[in-house]
Amino acid sequence: MRTIKVKTGQPYDILVDGGLLTEVPKDLADLSLGYRYAVISDSRVADILGEDFVRMLEENDLPADLFVFPEGEASKNMDTVVDIARRMVRAGYDRKCAVIALGGGVTGDLAGFLASIYLRGVPYVQIPTTLLAQVDSSVGGKTGVDLPEGKNLLGTFYQPRRVYIDYGVLSTLPLEHLRNGLAEVVKYGCILSPDLFSFLEEKADRLLHYDADALEHIICESCRLKAEVVSRDEKEGHWRRVLNFGHTIGHAIEAAMNYQMLHGFCVSIGMVAAARLSEALDLARNISPRLEALLESLGLPIRLPEGLDIESVMKFLRADKKVWRGKLTFVLLKDLGEPVFYEEPPAEVLLETLASLKSS
Amino acid sequence: MRTIKVKTGQPYDILVDGGLLTEVPKDLADLSLGYRYAVISDSRVADILGEDFVRMLEENDLPADLFVFPEGEASKNMDTVVDIARRMVRAGYDRKCAVIALGGGVTGDLAGFLASIYLRGVPYVQIPTTLLAQVDSSVGGKTGVDLPEGKNLLGTFYQPRRVYIDYGVLSTLPLEHLRNGLAEVVKYGCILSPDLFSFLEEKADRLLHYDADALEHIICESCRLKAEVVSRDEKEGHWRRVLNFGHTIGHAIEAAMNYQMLHGFCVSIGMVAAARLSEALDLARNISPRLEALLESLGLPIRLPEGLDIESVMKFLRADKKVWRGKLTFVLLKDLGEPVFYEEPPAEVLLETLASLKSS
Repeated sequence: MRTIKVKTGQPYDILVDGGLLTEVPKDLADLSLGYRYAVISDSRVADILGEDFVRMLEENDLPADLFVFPEGEASKNMDTVVDIARRMVRAGYDRKCAVIALGGGVTGDLAGFLASIYLRGVPYVQIPTTLLAQVDSSVGGKTGVDLPEGKNLLGTFYQPRRVYIDYGVLSTLPLEHLRNGLAEVVKYGCILSPDLFSFLEEKADRLLHYDADALEHIICESCRLKAEVVSRDEKEGHWRRVLNFGHTIGHAIEAAMNYQMLHGFCVSIGMVAAARLSEALDLARNISPRLEALLESLGLPIRLPEGLDIESVMKFLRADKKVWRGKLTFVLLKDLGEPVFYEEPPAEVLLETLASLKSS
Repeated sequence: MRTIKVKTGQPYDILVDGGLLTEVPKDLADLSLGYRYAVISDSRVADILGEDFVRMLEENDLPADLFVFPEGEASKNMDTVVDIARRMVRAGYDRKCAVIALGGGVTGDLAGFLASIYLRGVPYVQIPTTLLAQVDSSVGGKTGVDLPEGKNLLGTFYQPRRVYIDYGVLSTLPLEHLRNGLAEVVKYGCILSPDLFSFLEEKADRLLHYDADALEHIICESCRLKAEVVSRDEKEGHWRRVLNFGHTIGHAIEAAMNYQMLHGFCVSIGMVAAARLSEALDLARNISPRLEALLESLGLPIRLPEGLDIESVMKFLRADKKVWRGKLTFVLLKDLGEPVFYEEPPAEVLLETLASLKSS
């Protein structure tokens, strides 16, 4: 088992191991966060893992109940939070309970937010079950729900008391969702660690075959790198925004595709765009060919989806800017591991870069 | 102008003065919490004060908009929070905005909660416009909304950056709402300050005539006393619960009356019950006659409302206990200024005490 320490205001540990799930009850008993556990999962994870997990808690004398919500981003809203909170109140969950988020990114964001506001805050732990959640959303303490006007518009900064990452559970994760998470790992390589980037190049094939050692390495490295950034800048200050590499254009693509394309896939294209933009602005040379080769070897897209026109991506980039009356800031690269912030690139350079990413 | 310092994690000042409202724009400009202000008020306060206040902000080059919700406790729910948040997003309110809660307790709780979760938290200030809010809910950083299952079940601890108390605005407050706030002032006297208790005895008549000096004194003393408690125990620990004096039975009466009786009125009866219970348990002697005389001179009720039977009060006391699986803990008095926590008084003593409070 490996341990990563996150040094936020309230510090906590991330534990990483294959088969860790079965160790959780004993560790929870030692942590003694509460005398009763509300396990929150979506309908898919509830079937695969949730019911067994709650039974295991009860067998270890940890009273627990499973609170299930319908799978999907569409559930990540305040109605779901209120619905689960009401069920918890009716079941008698008081201030001495704790929340367990068992699932992917939506579950982590939703359950973390609920924990932060339930009776003005109860402790919670994260058990991320997708690679994306393991390497990204379970570290950093961002919680939240969507509004019809946009994603994650309501939320809190609320640190979990512990994060349990069992890469064994990834064996039931469909391959495209594994790829979805790998895109974020590539991101950490680009902005923070040429070593991790090289590791991904070497082990791409093993990773796509769910190799345990390779998965353990990239998960630990990703968490360690993100934890460093977050420890330095817990609330959305300047430096933390380095994690937005690939996300400015990635989010615009995601919106233009009406959220029908996986987040990591959009970020993959967004990273290629950011690399090419870095080159077009003479910040960097020859990063994009290597990045594109890596992404392709991981089965991630490097060109705009067919049928998506550039104008609609530009529209969402401008809309974002207009809503927030801010400047359009990109995270670009001078080299692997050397990110720079760049404000307001000329529109024609941006357009040319996007045009170069059209599917041929 | 008087200043009370609240030493919570993020310390802040409470400013108290007659006519303070007109000084707010200049002070806000100095504080520079944001470049744009979302003023949140209920429909009643919006008419009386809100529109003028927003105009005053704009005249002082502070861009502002008024966000109004329907008056009343029924609005204190998540739907109202989501509705205002969506209007703010559509109006372009970003992380660099600040929220101003202009109104009574409901507005303060609701707007404070919204500020704590809007884009994961923006700064806010409180401008309480009822005596109850000025002496109670604007100090302490508790925010929240109700669920159908109970009051304040979802919320946060989130400190305002400043509280502006203008006792001049109380001139438009109906007398029964003045009394509503005075009940909480009596509470501070009972548990924390025999001096304040004596002051209330002396100045009861002046207070009921909205005397500015007397109001200033009780507001400052109440805020100072509550700030001391809250500074010592920011999140709901043991000591802070001393503020529940009169509230255990008070809340049960409030619920049994289906929330049709003002909070302070229920607390008034609850305080008499707590004093009599203290005497019945031989903790104290002869407190209740003096307390009842003071409450009566302030026009506050000291007997259970006609038609309310004791069994329904007991039912709500037991329900509270059952839901939270806890012990029924009362704040009782050994003397004025000497509160004690008392767990699970014998049911027959409790019943006798309540029976002694039947309207004759």
